Amino acid sequence: MMKSGQMTKGEQTRRKIVEAAAPIFNERGYDGASMADLMAATGLKKGGIYRHFSSKEELAAAAFDYTWKAAQNARLLHVEETGSASDQLKQLIANFVKFRGPVSGGCPIMNTAVDADDGNARLRTRVRKALRNWVARIEKIVAKGTERAEIRAEADPKAVATLIVATLEGALMISRLERNDHSLLCVQRQLDRYIDTELTTQRP
Amino acid sequence: MMKSGQMTKGEQTRRKIVEAAAPIFNERGYDGASMADLMAATGLKKGGIYRHFSSKEELAAAAFDYTWKAAQNARLLHVEETGSASDQLKQLIANFVKFRGPVSGGCPIMNTAVDADDGNARLRTRVRKALRNWVARIEKIVAKGTERAEIRAEADPKAVATLIVATLEGALMISRLERNDHSLLCVQRQLDRYIDTELTTQRP
Repeated sequence: MMKSGQMTKGEQTRRKIVEAAAPIFNERGYDGASMADLMAATGLKKGGIYRHFSSKEELAAAAFDYTWKAAQNARLLHVEETGSASDQLKQLIANFVKFRGPVSGGCPIMNTAVDADDGNARLRTRVRKALRNWVARIEKIVAKGTERAEIRAEADPKAVATLIVATLEGALMISRLERNDHSLLCVQRQLDRYIDTELTTQRP
Repeated sequence: MMKSGQMTKGEQTRRKIVEAAAPIFNERGYDGASMADLMAATGLKKGGIYRHFSSKEELAAAAFDYTWKAAQNARLLHVEETGSASDQLKQLIANFVKFRGPVSGGCPIMNTAVDADDGNARLRTRVRKALRNWVARIEKIVAKGTERAEIRAEADPKAVATLIVATLEGALMISRLERNDHSLLCVQRQLDRYIDTELTTQRP
């Protein structure tokens, strides 16, 4: 991240607008984020916001990038320094269950995907790229695990990554609706068991 | 379903409004469904719509009920008449993957959950009830399977149901974003395998 000392005043204002707008878009969606909401959150008038962004779409895209970066950092916390591929997958799952990231409103990928799947092509392209990176990151852990004989050779990295992401995202949807963590904890137990019984190579 | 012959003219109009409004709400969400959209879809003026519904919230709730009933019927198709509990679970998963229901825009539970999780208490209560019924339905199949010794005694019906629903919903989100069925087909294969290896009792 760039230090504020390196940012021009315009960049700082732009950053402040994005930070304030991010939870509005993540909680309420693109249509639900009204100009009045955005003005109240940023403390700026419409003209003040649009001096830095050419359109609501551009602001929404910047807000998505910000929210996704924060979520991704939370999900990947301590993953790299964790031991085997199986341990890394479990750490990543535990992070997803425990951390919500600093921007409220749930997973920006799920929110923006559901919000943009029937329109808003620019936002859809952006969220699709984020999702693909997220799946690819997990694929890579599995593939490396196979190379190091920590994960069984027959495991399909893409299929494993898809299962983990789909299950966590669906469980998060249920947990947010129920306003408790039961579903997330429930699928965490089952995914951990799946990693131990279906993926991990037997050790001596 | 009530035959149209038994419906009053007012009930028929109400029904037509709900049918026309259902895809609008399912695709665009509560905030995204504008009065102009609803007027265009129903062919009625604002006053014509609000003669039958006291508020946008009431119309959104009726639209959700309609969309959910249609989706539920598609997901449960041929499930009851299918053989063992494992076969019933697989049929239900196959239905989820194959059928989208007559109302476009994806799963009404996911859409409405994501849309209403940060507000709109009335809609949230409704979608939570629908989700609980859906999970309970799958739990019942598992529990009956355990009674008939088709499913292993150690299987936890609630955990199995939560895993299946979470995985399917998450995969649907990915498939809708990617505009292909890869994720749904990928988790279907893995859930079927899970049913065969983790749930089904060994047969002679």
